[in-house]
Amino acid sequence: MTIKPLADRVVTKMVEAEETTKSGIILAGSAKEKPQIAEIVAVGPGGVVDGKEVTMYVKAGDKVLLSKYSGTEVKVDGVEYTILRQSDILAVVE
Amino acid sequence: MTIKPLADRVVTKMVEAEETTKSGIILAGSAKEKPQIAEIVAVGPGGVVDGKEVTMYVKAGDKVLLSKYSGTEVKVDGVEYTILRQSDILAVVE
Amino acid sequence: MTIKPLADRVVTKMVEAEETTKSGIILAGSAKEKPQIAEIVAVGPGGVVDGKEVTMYVKAGDKVLLSKYSGTEVKVDGVEYTILRQSDILAVVE
Amino acid sequence: MTIKPLADRVVTKMVEAEETTKSGIILAGSAKEKPQIAEIVAVGPGGVVDGKEVTMYVKAGDKVLLSKYSGTEVKVDGVEYTILRQSDILAVVE
Amino acid sequence: MTIKPLADRVVTKMVEAEETTKSGIILAGSAKEKPQIAEIVAVGPGGVVDGKEVTMYVKAGDKVLLSKYSGTEVKVDGVEYTILRQSDILAVVE
Amino acid sequence: MTIKPLADRVVTKMVEAEETTKSGIILAGSAKEKPQIAEIVAVGPGGVVDGKEVTMYVKAGDKVLLSKYSGTEVKVDGVEYTILRQSDILAVVE
Amino acid sequence: MTIKPLADRVVTKMVEAEETTKSGIILAGSAKEKPQIAEIVAVGPGGVVDGKEVTMYVKAGDKVLLSKYSGTEVKVDGVEYTILRQSDILAVVE
Repeated sequence: MTIKPLADRVVTKMVEAEETTKSGIILAGSAKEKPQIAEIVAVGPGGVVDGKEVTMYVKAGDKVLLSKYSGTEVKVDGVEYTILRQSDILAVVE
Repeated sequence: MTIKPLADRVVTKMVEAEETTKSGIILAGSAKEKPQIAEIVAVGPGGVVDGKEVTMYVKAGDKVLLSKYSGTEVKVDGVEYTILRQSDILAVVE
Repeated sequence: MTIKPLADRVVTKMVEAEETTKSGIILAGSAKEKPQIAEIVAVGPGGVVDGKEVTMYVKAGDKVLLSKYSGTEVKVDGVEYTILRQSDILAVVE
Repeated sequence: MTIKPLADRVVTKMVEAEETTKSGIILAGSAKEKPQIAEIVAVGPGGVVDGKEVTMYVKAGDKVLLSKYSGTEVKVDGVEYTILRQSDILAVVE
Repeated sequence: MTIKPLADRVVTKMVEAEETTKSGIILAGSAKEKPQIAEIVAVGPGGVVDGKEVTMYVKAGDKVLLSKYSGTEVKVDGVEYTILRQSDILAVVE
Repeated sequence: MTIKPLADRVVTKMVEAEETTKSGIILAGSAKEKPQIAEIVAVGPGGVVDGKEVTMYVKAGDKVLLSKYSGTEVKVDGVEYTILRQSDILAVVE
Repeated sequence: MTIKPLADRVVTKMVEAEETTKSGIILAGSAKEKPQIAEIVAVGPGGVVDGKEVTMYVKAGDKVLLSKYSGTEVKVDGVEYTILRQSDILAVVE
């Protein structure tokens, strides 16, 4: 089963806390509105969104920082995903 | 009796919980603002909406993820439908 | 006495509950924010509305679905009408 | 003394309840947010308003339907007027 | 000392109640949000405001109607002025 | 140490109450939301701001009127400044 | 580990209070909504953001003034950063 995000949306999977620690990134506790690190699993096609041309500049596999309450959560095949607009992504971490 | 959505609207029918389970998709409980899987039954013609050209890229038969409170519910011939704008659809699932 | 809606507005007349039942459409109770079926009795000329060209694609006689609280109610010659913008119409039913 | 509305504004004078009844129009009680019938006494020049070209399509003498709380009331020479934007007019009645 | 309003702003001076009566204009009491008559004492240059070309069509000496709470009050050389945008002026009275 | 405002921002320094009196300008008490006189000490370069070309028409040394709560206050080298957008300036006083 | 901000975002690191004092800049206490001085550590590529071309005019190493609650805080490798849009930066200090 595949989730294909529409327009400028991306599907992300939260990176496990353990993995986060391993990579040296420590997020500021579990405070509200704090960003989170996530991995992109699917990227929408972009194109004209709300009358404006949007180019997708993130790709599957990218690790990204996002606000905890950005997007909408969905559980598919037992895995939790967050679907959000590319413009809600704060930064890519490498 | 046929429902013909206007502009960039689509008519969707919620997929039964049983069917959802069968297909391997398990939505995250019945929590508020969680997305739902629905099947598209009719698609508006698109065109100029609020001064912007909108192309419809979903079609009847598509299974889509949408926020529980997106759109407006209506019961026609005993079946409940949700009418919403294409831009409120989060993703297509296959 | 005639009501001529301006710009992209349409004048609609609620379809009687009996008529609704006859036609096989059953609206979801009297819950708040539920849509209603109405018949269009007059259509504005469209044209430039708020700086954007609007084409009217509904016509008098069309049965339409609309949200209960869309538009403004007015009683003329003892008949209640709802005046709303074409963009507030959800769908045409046939 | 003359009131010359600016831009896309019109000056209207409420039609007396008696006159309203005579003409066969009965407004839905005195409920809040219900529309009212008014007569246009002056029309602004239109032109570019908020960066958009506006054409005035109503004229002095037109009877119009408007929401009770649209516009701003002013008393000049003992007569109460309502000044509002043309786009707040719902319909012309004839 | 001179006040030179910027962009599409105008400087107005409230017309005294006595003068108002003399001219035959009686404003509707001191109720909240009622308009007031004022005299324009200075007009900004207009030009591009918020990305849109604005032409000034009022001039010093014009008597105008405005909402009581439009604009910002300032006292200069002992006189109270109201600085507001031209688009907040309802009408010119003659 | 120099403060260089970005885009269409200006840095202003409140004019002392004494100086204000000397120049004949008396502001309306210390009431909330009343404007204040300030001197401009630095002006941003203008240019494209939020997709719109902005030309700066004030300059360092100008005395300007502004709303008390416009902008953001900052203390640099012991002096309090207010940084605000040019469009928040009400008028220049001379 | 590198944080690469997207679009018109910049990554900033708060300048220590001690360093702030050394440079002669004293911020107005710890009051709410007061600006803060920060150093830019990474700058997004700019480009088309929300349909508008954005040019980045700040660079890594710049000291900037920003409102305390602008942006989103994130801790990476034990260092706290604030990610915000370039348009939220008030001024560069030199």
